[in-house]
Amino acid sequence: MVTLYDSRLSGNGWKLRLLLSFLNRPYTRQILNLAEGAAGTPEFLRLNPLARVPVLVLDDGTPLIESNAILMYLAQGTRWFPSEPLAATRVTQWLFFEQYDHLKYFARPRFLVSIAKQQEQYADEIVYLRQIGQKALVALEAQLQQTPFLTGPDCTIADIALFPYTSMAEMGGYALQPFPALREWIARVQALPGFVPLIPQ
Amino acid sequence: MVTLYDSRLSGNGWKLRLLLSFLNRPYTRQILNLAEGAAGTPEFLRLNPLARVPVLVLDDGTPLIESNAILMYLAQGTRWFPSEPLAATRVTQWLFFEQYDHLKYFARPRFLVSIAKQQEQYADEIVYLRQIGQKALVALEAQLQQTPFLTGPDCTIADIALFPYTSMAEMGGYALQPFPALREWIARVQALPGFVPLIPQ
Repeated sequence: MVTLYDSRLSGNGWKLRLLLSFLNRPYTRQILNLAEGAAGTPEFLRLNPLARVPVLVLDDGTPLIESNAILMYLAQGTRWFPSEPLAATRVTQWLFFEQYDHLKYFARPRFLVSIAKQQEQYADEIVYLRQIGQKALVALEAQLQQTPFLTGPDCTIADIALFPYTSMAEMGGYALQPFPALREWIARVQALPGFVPLIPQ
Repeated sequence: MVTLYDSRLSGNGWKLRLLLSFLNRPYTRQILNLAEGAAGTPEFLRLNPLARVPVLVLDDGTPLIESNAILMYLAQGTRWFPSEPLAATRVTQWLFFEQYDHLKYFARPRFLVSIAKQQEQYADEIVYLRQIGQKALVALEAQLQQTPFLTGPDCTIADIALFPYTSMAEMGGYALQPFPALREWIARVQALPGFVPLIPQ
């Protein structure tokens, strides 16, 4: 069975737990306490020298890093990642968009505002990040005005990659009210069979 | 024939020109003048709503965006992107690393220092970006101390994605002298048959 090294509140780990659940694939979850430095131990750095979760360790001990690369690995050959080259590229475009235009601008404000509770101390940085993140919301809304999911009628790993931090945007002080198609998409993902919340009930 | 929408100095466009040349694949290059707003025209926004190069337009008029997604599309089935799932994942890991940990921290200082020549005005931002980019150089050096290219003995699209802005790091004020394996890797890529410089001779 594969082992997922995760933290309790990681949105990147949540991506993988969503896909593993949609695929109905069993796994062991190892929850690291990042605040206590669990990602910086020599044992963990052997799994990921970049000192961050998630890491997926395969049955033979091989560690995979980078949440979106792991999504692609797990989803290959399934309906969550089409194999036709152009359809696959429509998915990977969003995966790269998520890393360059999206992730940091949502994850960091959410951390500062709702987890570290350092909103005042980092007010300038939060404003700066949200100005960039706002453009990502506009891009997502424009696509979701046209299609139920990011690449068409079906949910793929593009949606799974963008769901966690978008759905938690308000924890970083974003307003989702101006984005009706995006809010419907969040509800659509949440309604999928196998959906799991960030914190298991 | 495919058409590459590019700018004269884009490192992301350079990635694609490197791969197209390595593949010996003919293409038409359309060079946009970004300083004159060529990426913001209605015609270009129909190709890429994110208003940036590169865009690759296929024979049938289909536009592809996101440089690393285009690298994957073009390299599929070639030796530049292995198809075995684990080997493919070793490549995609670096492609996502490039988008999250690398691109902005090299492209933006290079632009501010050597193209816009606004080093004084943006001194704080440049220092901030270089602090993050420095960690990416350390990660690249660590890998390249072990293998000639990022995923092993052969050059793949992982190397092509990371080559342009790493090789131009000094234009953003980075020092590459402390990274001997990385400097050898730059020379190794430059020596590959079909290598093309940023600005064609």
